[in-house]
Amino acid sequence: MNKQIRVGLIGAGRIGKIHAESIATQVAAANLVAVADVDLPAAEALGKQYSLTVSHDPQTILHDTSLDAVLICSPTNTHSSLIVAAAQQGKHIFCEKPIDLSLNRIDAAIAAVERAGVKLMIGFNRRFDANFAKVKQMIADGHIGDPHILRITSRDPAPPPISYIQVSGGIFLDLTIHDFDMARFLFGEVVEVYAVGGVMVDPAIGAAGDIDTAIMSLKFANGAIGSIDNSRRAVYGYDQRVEAFGSAGMVNADNNYPNSHAYYSASGILREKPFHFFLERYMPAYGSEIKAFVDCVVNDTEPPVTGADGRAPVVIAMAARQSYRENRPVKI
Amino acid sequence: MNKQIRVGLIGAGRIGKIHAESIATQVAAANLVAVADVDLPAAEALGKQYSLTVSHDPQTILHDTSLDAVLICSPTNTHSSLIVAAAQQGKHIFCEKPIDLSLNRIDAAIAAVERAGVKLMIGFNRRFDANFAKVKQMIADGHIGDPHILRITSRDPAPPPISYIQVSGGIFLDLTIHDFDMARFLFGEVVEVYAVGGVMVDPAIGAAGDIDTAIMSLKFANGAIGSIDNSRRAVYGYDQRVEAFGSAGMVNADNNYPNSHAYYSASGILREKPFHFFLERYMPAYGSEIKAFVDCVVNDTEPPVTGADGRAPVVIAMAARQSYRENRPVKI
Amino acid sequence: MNKQIRVGLIGAGRIGKIHAESIATQVAAANLVAVADVDLPAAEALGKQYSLTVSHDPQTILHDTSLDAVLICSPTNTHSSLIVAAAQQGKHIFCEKPIDLSLNRIDAAIAAVERAGVKLMIGFNRRFDANFAKVKQMIADGHIGDPHILRITSRDPAPPPISYIQVSGGIFLDLTIHDFDMARFLFGEVVEVYAVGGVMVDPAIGAAGDIDTAIMSLKFANGAIGSIDNSRRAVYGYDQRVEAFGSAGMVNADNNYPNSHAYYSASGILREKPFHFFLERYMPAYGSEIKAFVDCVVNDTEPPVTGADGRAPVVIAMAARQSYRENRPVKI
Amino acid sequence: MNKQIRVGLIGAGRIGKIHAESIATQVAAANLVAVADVDLPAAEALGKQYSLTVSHDPQTILHDTSLDAVLICSPTNTHSSLIVAAAQQGKHIFCEKPIDLSLNRIDAAIAAVERAGVKLMIGFNRRFDANFAKVKQMIADGHIGDPHILRITSRDPAPPPISYIQVSGGIFLDLTIHDFDMARFLFGEVVEVYAVGGVMVDPAIGAAGDIDTAIMSLKFANGAIGSIDNSRRAVYGYDQRVEAFGSAGMVNADNNYPNSHAYYSASGILREKPFHFFLERYMPAYGSEIKAFVDCVVNDTEPPVTGADGRAPVVIAMAARQSYRENRPVKI
Repeated sequence: MNKQIRVGLIGAGRIGKIHAESIATQVAAANLVAVADVDLPAAEALGKQYSLTVSHDPQTILHDTSLDAVLICSPTNTHSSLIVAAAQQGKHIFCEKPIDLSLNRIDAAIAAVERAGVKLMIGFNRRFDANFAKVKQMIADGHIGDPHILRITSRDPAPPPISYIQVSGGIFLDLTIHDFDMARFLFGEVVEVYAVGGVMVDPAIGAAGDIDTAIMSLKFANGAIGSIDNSRRAVYGYDQRVEAFGSAGMVNADNNYPNSHAYYSASGILREKPFHFFLERYMPAYGSEIKAFVDCVVNDTEPPVTGADGRAPVVIAMAARQSYRENRPVKI
Repeated sequence: MNKQIRVGLIGAGRIGKIHAESIATQVAAANLVAVADVDLPAAEALGKQYSLTVSHDPQTILHDTSLDAVLICSPTNTHSSLIVAAAQQGKHIFCEKPIDLSLNRIDAAIAAVERAGVKLMIGFNRRFDANFAKVKQMIADGHIGDPHILRITSRDPAPPPISYIQVSGGIFLDLTIHDFDMARFLFGEVVEVYAVGGVMVDPAIGAAGDIDTAIMSLKFANGAIGSIDNSRRAVYGYDQRVEAFGSAGMVNADNNYPNSHAYYSASGILREKPFHFFLERYMPAYGSEIKAFVDCVVNDTEPPVTGADGRAPVVIAMAARQSYRENRPVKI
Repeated sequence: MNKQIRVGLIGAGRIGKIHAESIATQVAAANLVAVADVDLPAAEALGKQYSLTVSHDPQTILHDTSLDAVLICSPTNTHSSLIVAAAQQGKHIFCEKPIDLSLNRIDAAIAAVERAGVKLMIGFNRRFDANFAKVKQMIADGHIGDPHILRITSRDPAPPPISYIQVSGGIFLDLTIHDFDMARFLFGEVVEVYAVGGVMVDPAIGAAGDIDTAIMSLKFANGAIGSIDNSRRAVYGYDQRVEAFGSAGMVNADNNYPNSHAYYSASGILREKPFHFFLERYMPAYGSEIKAFVDCVVNDTEPPVTGADGRAPVVIAMAARQSYRENRPVKI
Repeated sequence: MNKQIRVGLIGAGRIGKIHAESIATQVAAANLVAVADVDLPAAEALGKQYSLTVSHDPQTILHDTSLDAVLICSPTNTHSSLIVAAAQQGKHIFCEKPIDLSLNRIDAAIAAVERAGVKLMIGFNRRFDANFAKVKQMIADGHIGDPHILRITSRDPAPPPISYIQVSGGIFLDLTIHDFDMARFLFGEVVEVYAVGGVMVDPAIGAAGDIDTAIMSLKFANGAIGSIDNSRRAVYGYDQRVEAFGSAGMVNADNNYPNSHAYYSASGILREKPFHFFLERYMPAYGSEIKAFVDCVVNDTEPPVTGADGRAPVVIAMAARQSYRENRPVKI
């Protein structure tokens, strides 16, 4: 039980820093020892904070034989090749989502992992949010009975820069992909999707070939149905809720709030709006996520979010994109 | 301002009784004086309670020249011909929804009303619910800015008898029709609908050629999108909520509850579930509705729910039915 | 079960009108047939609305041998003598609170009722509020276990006119008396009270010899303790809540609201404030109250709020007044 | 701005560990370098985790001239003498509450601090809770107008061991002292207190000479009034709420919850109960607290909770104890 794994981090950006801090403060079974980033000063800053060896080259991490596992937190277009390379070096792998925007490369990465017999866990952090995890548990424990209707609301507080939109793969692969994962997490496999949407938030998003507002209808393999709604801008903050309805009842999850105060005045009762930023909402989930990865490596158990779990939402997102473009339901 | 109209009631069933009581206790500007029902004992019971002249024949009401207005609360298949007849007699008309399940007959009824120059108001009572009326007002006052996403949840506590299902016209024309009206009330005209659904509550409903669970995606004329979800059985009661999201914010409305108590025990915090029955939820709305009808007659103003408002949801419901059967979006 | 009692009403003011309407629309077992008020036009208006015989003299009601029961809704200083007179005429009595501000006259009234063997019910309407009734039921059913702590919040939206304050008997006998009744209703007999308070809302209330803000500490006969807080002005509306805490849990009751909407904007989440006026909050309770009185007469059962229940809060209120004046706890 | 202070920790128990972790992970401006505890293994365990020099003797910390500040987290009966000794060594001091149970020793400690010109901050952690801090800010910003009524609910999930009760100084000095601090934090100085209470949770607490349930009435210097209720056992968890009412409105704060789910079933709507343990509720507050201490040392500003703030609640608690014993209000 005192086993501790040695971990290397590829990517010293926002999400890499979060995982570094989580490991340092919350995950006793892991020891983060090295970081690499092509942006060397970023790697150095993080290295200094956590006493890590530093490199500008991910290969340094991949070929460090003292490391048991790597965290791939670099840009999406590097994920699949880094997975392949890490697997070849026999390292367990935690990779941020999405694995890739190409199914071929996703499949190649998963195949490499299987050949190497290493663990691969994909960073769908929302599964580790206390609210959604509780909904999942309530469903698994049979409290809603047979699942009938799933509703997911997922709205960002503000759109990303247009430069990001342009390379994001579009709203379905960039934003809704989280909700497709949540849909699978809660109700199982999706077999058909239909998407409607439009450009309502910012014409520049339309000019970039994307949309900013969407609703998806889902059919699940178990016969249940679902609906997801997305917006790139909810002025009241980051809005992430689910509602799972079935034969025996409904369980839902609300947002998290900075505080619980309410102000009763002559104008009404005013409460705080939800957390504005996804990091505020999901910070505890990131810690639980990395801990889950380390646990599955230490205990040699199945990762809670597998490579197949990383692949499936990409497939659904592609179908949603096709559905929106052709205005017809698309089977998965 | 002291004008009082004389009203006749056709149909002494559940909804007829509600309107009789509302007029007697809440609507000073109306005097209910006559009731007719083919079920004479039902008419007599109501007549005795409110001191009304009683008949088994609606014609008695229609040809009573002392009456200013009639309330048509008889079965749906009698609505359109009673509207035509009442219009021909120059009476103002309040008619329960739906006007009819045939567009031809709806159009004929509306045409007769227009020729006669009488008022016709359709009984979409939910528009008069304090919660939904407040949402409407907030939207109208610009509080959500440009409308983007509308979500409507509408679930019955238990399915009606199969005998009723068989003649109901199907879930879209029987249950969702209310939600299509609510969608139009809040976000305006619907231009396209896509429906998914299935038989999840009771196989007997499927055997009767209907479904019991559905989700509809909507496109509105103003570019907004929406989603409606329906179930014939929510074990926790009658579940009727809306959520209107736009560029400047969101306004939603929750259910009503029998009381406000909460019980904090070692098992959690337990609150009362919503009202179980639509009459409990909407009783105040029925009163407001009839008062609005009487007001428009007395003050010679436009009814708040017109014949066109009665027709449109039928058209959308038919499109939804077709969409479900053909699994494709259908334009209105 | 078809028995119907004949009822006379003394007092055609605000509360008399409410009871008249409740009987007409909600209480089938009672028939309101007569009204008397020294303000004859008020009596006539009500008489016209409900087809009642009308008088300016309460004696007309008291000596009408066709009447089974009377509702005493006249000013407080007439209550005790009218109770005595009605009892002598063998009529069952519903009397608004308080019975009197003199314990001698209260005792005389109760004695007259006992001699006559008629029913006397006191109008503590809040006991019939759905929220508080549920709290009572939860306590009675053992859900909180042994009672430990009772918290009552009772705040008016605005103070009454100074002219009313001057003859009200002071805040303890005018406002807190309701809360003392609620305390007894929920936790049983009060054995000691300590009051603090002051003039915070309006100096004119202080000039009239009264206070407008107060907190009472209570000791109950069962060993539990409690706290009541009062204000004459809550700018956000009529605020009436309770919280009952015990060995097995807590049950509380919130206010009622005009609607359930919530508005999510960049400024926060805004909900409607509670109902502003006590009639809005308690209108359903008034109906339940009168129905309970009629039921106890028709079924010859004990009134749910007895003469002793009318006397006890006056005693506590007097003790609270003394406690405030002498700044010491006072035993009942 | 890059100044970093060197900190020594006296006491490696539960609260000492919390502060050690907070400094290590959240407070960049402090460097924890040494720990001392008479329980040497406890000190060694903590020392190993955070790479600290370790001692069984607090004097080692006090005489380490490289240290700028000390955290006194040892038992209460050591606080005042450690404060005096630390002040004599010119060290800034963070001390857990209460300073002492003797006013003489408290005054001696404060005098030593003043002579030495060092900072002294007392660990009233609840002031740093996001909910209560927001209430404070709303009051300070004038949102409730003039303060009228303060209600504080403070209930533990379960009583401490009887062995602890026996040396705790009694409920007023052990539990209510936090609420007296909160009362001062929100509404200012307390000038009179009256306490009622009893043994309702466990007779063994009574046998130890203490009570387990209490309500305190407060008078504030500004004329406002307040009420605090305490219990040693709330079966539904740790219950810590406040409600501040004034001329312009009310602001309250609710508990924190493990998650936001709600389960709608045929039995009602069930939510999670509040966090059960004070550490779960207040963990973020502990971090903010230590950060505030370090900030005041680094920036040479007044500590947000002074020695006088540590003394005042002890005085109020003693008055409450006297009030309870003598059943009369006691002036401060």
